[in-house]
This record gives sequence, C-alpha cells and structure tokens, in this order.
Amino acid sequence: MQRFFSPAQLIHAPARELHNGSFTDYAETPARAEAILRAIGGAAEPADRGEGPILAVHTPDYVAFLKDAARLWREAGRPGNAIPYAFPIVGRRPLKLDRIDALLGRHGFDATTPITPDTWAAAYASAQTALAATHAVLDGQQAAFALCRPPGHHAGADYCGGYCHLNVAAIAAQAARDAGMERVAILDIDYHHGNGTQDIFWTRSDVFYASVHADPARDYPFYWGHADEVGEGEGRGATLNLPLPHGTTRAAFRATQVQALDAIAAFDPGLLVVSFGADTWEGDPISRFALKTDDYPLLAADICDRGWPTVIVMEGGYAVDALGANVAGFLSGFDG
Amino acid sequence: MQRFFSPAQLIHAPARELHNGSFTDYAETPARAEAILRAIGGAAEPADRGEGPILAVHTPDYVAFLKDAARLWREAGRPGNAIPYAFPIVGRRPLKLDRIDALLGRHGFDATTPITPDTWAAAYASAQTALAATHAVLDGQQAAFALCRPPGHHAGADYCGGYCHLNVAAIAAQAARDAGMERVAILDIDYHHGNGTQDIFWTRSDVFYASVHADPARDYPFYWGHADEVGEGEGRGATLNLPLPHGTTRAAFRATQVQALDAIAAFDPGLLVVSFGADTWEGDPISRFALKTDDYPLLAADICDRGWPTVIVMEGGYAVDALGANVAGFLSGFDG
Repeated sequence: MQRFFSPAQLIHAPARELHNGSFTDYAETPARAEAILRAIGGAAEPADRGEGPILAVHTPDYVAFLKDAARLWREAGRPGNAIPYAFPIVGRRPLKLDRIDALLGRHGFDATTPITPDTWAAAYASAQTALAATHAVLDGQQAAFALCRPPGHHAGADYCGGYCHLNVAAIAAQAARDAGMERVAILDIDYHHGNGTQDIFWTRSDVFYASVHADPARDYPFYWGHADEVGEGEGRGATLNLPLPHGTTRAAFRATQVQALDAIAAFDPGLLVVSFGADTWEGDPISRFALKTDDYPLLAADICDRGWPTVIVMEGGYAVDALGANVAGFLSGFDG
Repeated sequence: MQRFFSPAQLIHAPARELHNGSFTDYAETPARAEAILRAIGGAAEPADRGEGPILAVHTPDYVAFLKDAARLWREAGRPGNAIPYAFPIVGRRPLKLDRIDALLGRHGFDATTPITPDTWAAAYASAQTALAATHAVLDGQQAAFALCRPPGHHAGADYCGGYCHLNVAAIAAQAARDAGMERVAILDIDYHHGNGTQDIFWTRSDVFYASVHADPARDYPFYWGHADEVGEGEGRGATLNLPLPHGTTRAAFRATQVQALDAIAAFDPGLLVVSFGADTWEGDPISRFALKTDDYPLLAADICDRGWPTVIVMEGGYAVDALGANVAGFLSGFDG
C-alpha cells in the first residue's frame, strides 16, 4: 500500500492545552507521527496540489484566520500559543471582528487546540498528504494511507478544535467528488466523534458519513455524535452515529463497525475514506475503549473485504509507544 | 434611595480565570462589593423571596447545574474551580450529558467564569438583592439600588459567562412583569454588552432592552451587541444596540444614552431597570472608555429626569479603588 507523509507536518508543536481544568502538555505531539513513520517503514512525500482542494471544504475567511492567527496573537502582546476563551454559542454568524480573541472563538469551539506560527504550514502539509493518498486511489490503487498529522475530523468548514485544523477526511472525500466520483463514504473509527466531518456534509446526500465512537454524553466532543443526529435536508439519512460505552472490546466494536459498513454498502460508494484513530486501544491515555493491538488487522480486513477503493487518513491515538504497532497492524489488514 | 445587599454575596471567590491566553487573578472580586458598600454607607439585607422569581427567567436544568457543578467537579477529581473547555457552537440543544466538562460547556460560553462550591449561594443572594430593590420600587419608591454581585447581564436563561450566573436585571424585570407591570424597559450602561439579557428577552415585546456598550468587534462578548441585532419575532424592534469606540468620553456617551432613553420613552415603560457598570470609567483595568468620576451624577440625572420608577442593579467595574466613588456618584444623580 502506498503511504504518504511530509516532514512539514512535524513543525506544529503547541506546548500545552487547556483540558479538564488545567493546562497540560499538548497530547497531539510530533512524536506520534514519527512513531508511526518508523513502524510503517517510511512514506513518500506528497505532491503540492495547492489551496484549491482545501478551499473546496473550508471557507476563505477561516483559511485566512489560520494563516494570520499566530501573528495577530503576537502583535496583541500575548504569551505562548493562541487559544480562545469565549465562544459564539448562540446565533453563530459571519461578523467583522477586529480582535484576535474574538476571531479565535469565532473559528474554534474549544481551548485544547492552540495555534502556533507553524500551524498553517503543518495543516497544509497534512492536507496535501491526504490528497496524495486520494489521488493514488483515484489513479487505480486499491488502498493508500495518508499519515495525516495534525488530524482533521474535529475541524468544520470554518472552525478548528480537538487538535484539528483542516479536515483531511473531508478534503479527501471532496477531492474524490470533484474528480468525478458520484458517491463517497466516510467511515470514522476514531474513539471520538468526527463532528467537523459531520457538519461539513450535514445537508449533503453525495457524501455518507458513518461514525463508531465513544458516547458523547461522556466523551468529547459532547455536543455532537448522539444517535439521533442523522443529517438534515437532502443530507437526511446520510449521517449515521453509532456511540459505544466505555470499556468496549473487539466483539462489540466489530459488530458496530459491520453495522456502519452495511449502511455504507446500501449507499453504494465509489470510494471510501477511513478516518482511522488508534485511540480505541486499551492503553490510550485519554480514551476508554479496550481494543487490543491484535484487533486492528481484523477490523481492517472487515473493511478491506467490502472491496471499495479506500483512502485511510490518520486521526487520533495518543499512546505513542503503542501507536506504531497499532497503525501498522491496521494497515496490514489491507494487505491480506 | 433604598439600597440592598446581602453578605452572602461575598462568598463567591474564584481564584483565577482564563483570559487572553493565560490564567489571571479573577477580576470580579468580593472586594468590589465591599468598596461600594463602604462608599454608599451600607445597605439593607434583602428578604428571601425563594427560587420562584429565578425560575421565571432561568431554566430548571440550568439552576440544577449551578447547584451541582462544584460537587461534580470535585467528584471527578478536578483541581481548583470548575471551568469549561469545549462548547456547543453548532446546534445548541438540550442533551443528556453525564460528564461535568460537558455540562460546563452546555451551560456556559467562556472560560472566564469559574464555579466554586459557593457560587450558587452568592448568585442566589445577588438575585434576592435585585428582587428587594424591585419590590421597593413596586411598593412606591421612585428608585432603589441593588448592590448585585456576582453581576448578571452576561448570563442567559441557561448559560453563565462573563462573571455572571443569574441575570439579576432580567430577574428584576420579570418580577415587575409578574407583579402586573405591563411594559418594562432595561437600560444597560455597563461597558460590555449584556448578551444574556438580550437573549432572554430576544423574542418578547413586553420587555425593551437598550444597551450602550463597547463595540463587540473589539470587546467582549464579541458575538453579541452588534448594531444590527434588533430582536426577532414579536421582539423585533424591542432590542436596541448602540456600540461605541474605545476612548469614548462623556459627550458621546451621554448623547448615545439619550438616544437609548428616547427609544425607551417611545416604548413607554411602567418601570425601568438600569444595568449599571462602572467599568466605563477611564481607569478601569479591563475596559477602554474614558468617563470621569464627575460624569456619573450627570448620566444618572439624565435617566432620573425621565421620571420612570427605576431599579438600579450593579453590573461590572473593576477599578476597586475608584469603584465606590463612581457608584456613589451615580446614585447621587437620582437624589437631585
């Protein structure tokens, strides 16, 4: 399987995040990508396909914000990395805002996703990595892996959050659509619900979004991913949320993934994007499922056997010492 | 003029707030109320009118949250005071949520408003103080002052924020409505827009809300208080926002307040609630208007001369050394 990664993805390295009441070390570290890269034996550098495929998913004002935020933060005399503290919870709308704190809340939903002077370049490279894998599949490969980092599935069309800035799964799916693929499905098997991906395709019938994740009543992102969220308008029925409880092990996770795959089969996609997180592993420091390293090849084989051309993009997974084996194991399930 | 205050309002004392990228000392200190109390020569303790008038404005689940949040935070093993880090920026709705962090974001919009084990008791007492002043006016006084603290105007029906937990101005206005007053107006002259008050009466025609405040394009709460926000449905036209630039001095502030008073006069209220903040003062540490201490009696006289029975509730003002003189000066304008 072709694998893609750009070293530029490593330069985004916030120092800390606000989490559960205190500033803690930032969990989404460059070391995550380095561990995966070692375990999979390297990866090819992606071509640069420019901003067009990014702007096909994200709004121009959000992209401008990602580029400018760190500079505006510094010009305001602020220490450390840019983080928001106030949010438009009622009546979110485009507004002319002249202060970096206002812009940060306008384009974010949490205080765990700092922006550094290197964030845009790393997120841009992560998007190019997703596009490289997508075009490998569009060009005939059965599957390809994008070692995306920063991850993407919490980022919406005009907001960041959950360590995510550009939605790499959505950018991949949209690129496939724009290349002429009529129906594209996204299977999200990160521990956390992919609220950004859901929001981006919420009212669309051409991209099916199915997610297996921790029940948001207890787990981030809390306000998205409940089972009654099914899309709206033309997108009604093209969103499927399958929340699971803490402690979920292979049998239950697998059965639920089969449920998602069956729904995707009914949708009959020409291409599948998998948002893969390894934070479903039993030892993940911020998650509470109980999958084992040996489970990942099997879960991948269940996907592989459906036969859809598949782009795998990397999302979460924070147990750095186990991450390489878990990801390599998952990818091996596509080689069977 | 009758003045009201309860010592129970002093027990809410968070240690710190997240503001502009770092944790800083909490600005809304008990010392604020103590300084005002000294300057106005004391105040009467309010009667206890129970939770009914609070629940006439705030939702039962929000009131339950305010009572439970500190305990749930402690039970989750969290340090310090309860603060949120993630927020429902898209599609805010009632949800069954089982984690304190989820509840905090569900019922808040910023990270500057911690909840302590004493928050509910202090906010409850602040509401009783507002109700005492309201009933003094309903019983025939021309004006009365509620030394509310915590303040209220950033708190919505089901959310806290901006140092505010219970919306004392809204509770006062609603109590007047429930006592039979057909039309009630609220004049908000705190430096910051009173987003909570606006939201509470957004679709109602019986309570007019007019606010003179710093332009939210640059100042908190950023996403509310823009001039094009005028209410909706039956409330359309019953909200008036008059933002002003940094550096505003007496002449411009006074003319804008006259504009608000003229609109209120057209509405013809039976009772006026003034949300008074002294953070419009030139030396306020977190605000950027330039009113002088001598300006406050004049601004008050302009309100007083309209002749409406008036309840004054205390909102912001963070220059503790000047706060007493500024508030006492404002109240003196009603004694002229």
